[in-house]
Amino acid sequence: MDLKKFIIDVKDFPQAGVIFKDITPLLNDVDAFKYVIDEFTNFVKETGANVIVAPEARGFLFAPAIAYAAGCRFVLVRKPGKLPRAVNDVEYSLEYGTGHLQMHKGDLRENDKVVILDDVLATGGTMDGIIKLCHKESNVDIAGIACLIDLSFLHDDALAKEYNVKTLITY
Amino acid sequence: MDLKKFIIDVKDFPQAGVIFKDITPLLNDVDAFKYVIDEFTNFVKETGANVIVAPEARGFLFAPAIAYAAGCRFVLVRKPGKLPRAVNDVEYSLEYGTGHLQMHKGDLRENDKVVILDDVLATGGTMDGIIKLCHKESNVDIAGIACLIDLSFLHDDALAKEYNVKTLITY
Repeated sequence: MDLKKFIIDVKDFPQAGVIFKDITPLLNDVDAFKYVIDEFTNFVKETGANVIVAPEARGFLFAPAIAYAAGCRFVLVRKPGKLPRAVNDVEYSLEYGTGHLQMHKGDLRENDKVVILDDVLATGGTMDGIIKLCHKESNVDIAGIACLIDLSFLHDDALAKEYNVKTLITY
Repeated sequence: MDLKKFIIDVKDFPQAGVIFKDITPLLNDVDAFKYVIDEFTNFVKETGANVIVAPEARGFLFAPAIAYAAGCRFVLVRKPGKLPRAVNDVEYSLEYGTGHLQMHKGDLRENDKVVILDDVLATGGTMDGIIKLCHKESNVDIAGIACLIDLSFLHDDALAKEYNVKTLITY
């Protein structure tokens, strides 16, 4: 399926010079959304993962459906101040400066096999942060990384050399 | 299924005097999450809806899976500054003051039958806002309202008198 026709380029959003990839038309098309969820569900099953980890807010647009279809647990990564109980925390690189991501302590368990799911793979800074966050619990295996959109011009192939990476749309 | 055992009460979060209902243990349990998605999917099918509308961020934790399982389109409600194209906007009541919610113009279409999905029904202010937002597109039918948790002590029965409301956990 040609998924690019369900992605709209929006210039100068959220700031001047950025071309934002608007994925909402894909969510608003039953066949395109089903195709994406089925592709990622097959990927998750191939990896043998038992947990999907996804960050707010756009990772949440796909992860619940994949967790449901693949029969996996679903664990949240959120920004500071959103998770109410004791958290692990990681600082990660943004284009300018740094941010923090958090996961409830104990949400991942010994010997969990995790697929991390996000909408866009850009510089890889967010994904690096989430990987570090997962490893704050002992003996967690990163079985795969799944992103709808690969902005391949923004990163090298370091992530793909170390991990099983699945993307569906490449720019 | 006794879903309450997957909800943790967290006192004084996000502010003193509030008891926050933490739903993350439910997401992190395969059987409980599947039960919730299946219940809501059956509800959506009974209503004849063809679109699921859900607000960020916690509505997104269920809506994609229900949209996938029920074969519905999935339309986002977001806070200001998040949707990149032309939006409809609504002001809605919060406990103290007001906020705004937005939906991309044209995401809902003539004769759409909508189920609105959120995690918690509290005062109903957010739900009222989303209903108004849906009606900014012409001839949209609100076929149902689905919320995981009903904080019934915080609202009267006005919503249930006018709409087909489905909740799974009542406090």
